[in-house]
Amino acid sequence: MKTYLECIPCFFKQALIASQIAGADEVTQKKVLDKLSQMIPDFSLEQKPPEMGKDIYALVRDVTGNPDPFKEIKYRFNKIALNLYPNLKKKVKESKDPLLTAIRLSIAGNVIDYGTPNSFNVDDEIDDTLKKDFAIFDYEKFKNSLTSTSQILYLADNAGEVVFDKILIEELNKEIIYVVRDEPIINDALIEDALFCEMDKVAKIISSGSDAPGTILEYCSKDFLEIYKNSKFVISKGQGNFEALSEETKPIFFLFKTKCYCSAKDVGCNIGDIILKSAL
Amino acid sequence: MKTYLECIPCFFKQALIASQIAGADEVTQKKVLDKLSQMIPDFSLEQKPPEMGKDIYALVRDVTGNPDPFKEIKYRFNKIALNLYPNLKKKVKESKDPLLTAIRLSIAGNVIDYGTPNSFNVDDEIDDTLKKDFAIFDYEKFKNSLTSTSQILYLADNAGEVVFDKILIEELNKEIIYVVRDEPIINDALIEDALFCEMDKVAKIISSGSDAPGTILEYCSKDFLEIYKNSKFVISKGQGNFEALSEETKPIFFLFKTKCYCSAKDVGCNIGDIILKSAL
Repeated sequence: MKTYLECIPCFFKQALIASQIAGADEVTQKKVLDKLSQMIPDFSLEQKPPEMGKDIYALVRDVTGNPDPFKEIKYRFNKIALNLYPNLKKKVKESKDPLLTAIRLSIAGNVIDYGTPNSFNVDDEIDDTLKKDFAIFDYEKFKNSLTSTSQILYLADNAGEVVFDKILIEELNKEIIYVVRDEPIINDALIEDALFCEMDKVAKIISSGSDAPGTILEYCSKDFLEIYKNSKFVISKGQGNFEALSEETKPIFFLFKTKCYCSAKDVGCNIGDIILKSAL
Repeated sequence: MKTYLECIPCFFKQALIASQIAGADEVTQKKVLDKLSQMIPDFSLEQKPPEMGKDIYALVRDVTGNPDPFKEIKYRFNKIALNLYPNLKKKVKESKDPLLTAIRLSIAGNVIDYGTPNSFNVDDEIDDTLKKDFAIFDYEKFKNSLTSTSQILYLADNAGEVVFDKILIEELNKEIIYVVRDEPIINDALIEDALFCEMDKVAKIISSGSDAPGTILEYCSKDFLEIYKNSKFVISKGQGNFEALSEETKPIFFLFKTKCYCSAKDVGCNIGDIILKSAL
């Protein structure tokens, strides 16, 4: 997905919120915004939003001196999500279509995202996502592809959300490679988050080699790219991974909730819609 | 009111919307945002938001080549408001407290504002503002001051809103000087709008001498400042005028609806609250 002009005010909003979460004083926050201003003229709209996101959050880390502003938030959401796990499992078990319920829950978990500036309530989000109609619903294609694959490459999004992914992974019942970011970026899941949420019990955990808030292939490690290239079934979680990979022509299934005007416009739906979209 | 850091993303949003309304193509819109970026590091937060607003809209006019991007919008809202006039008069006449109803309506008219990025519906706004509790309600002070004044300086805000101001002015029944902006700025009322809305039938119309989207005294003409200095009763309409004059120690009554997080924070209320606030 290209960057829209409407992303630019949002970049400033995100940089400000991240600086505040990093504990910076007002002078430092202004310094972040000033330095971001200097970056804007050189930023091409042909780039993907997570490419700018990578630079913005690097700037926040650099100027505020806080290497991982969202560390506590990630820890808190991992804990909240782990506490929800038994109840989420129950919902899946009791549902008519456990796979679909698990897909819905993995999207509900995607609301645990401080990178986009909307407030939320996890319980409400779960209830809402279990009932809501999908704006794009390539479920038949997803199930058909699933029958002919033994291995799935699963691109993670946020901390906390990992627990919701685990619920889906347990329903998929395949060999899973679970891919997290390499370095702290917003509240995106790292290896430590995946381990904290006990993802290692159901999947092999690897890093993408990149700290962009979306799997921008140009920034990923050779090891990851080798695995990606050979994958026959990819699940891409979250808006950041969609923005990074939306132009790929591979068997990727994007699972996410549209959180802003631009991604909704790109998909052709409304903000807040839930998506199960095949790239092919 | 000082500028908050949260105003900065909003400046970009406003510049983008104004450029789009000006009919600029995407390349020109990006140019506006790039040039705004270059202005940010030199902008002090000690300045008032309408000072930056003045520069931003001058930039939009300059880069897009459109001297008055909101011209059609202003015309449209003048027409809409004029059509509402008989019904608004009826609401005032039939109410228990016609002065208060006229004050409420003049605030409802303040929703006709394209400078702040929220959508609205005029009829709903009128109904809502007639019922709503004031967050700040210096009405007794307003009425007391009114008994001891013969002349009122009335600082206008937007086109269209002029008609709603006329309703209030007819209830005040005093000698009124109605002050509009000197040059096109957003959808703020100019002399031509005041004349179109027949304000000349009930008030003397003058210009502040400035094109800032708020009465920043440093930018106003000597003639206006002389009148302002001698005024014993000032009505200030809209958020822009509040942002410009909130630190004045004069008998000013601010009538407006808070349209953004920053003005609400400054006043100590919530977004969307209605305000009748004495500066003294």
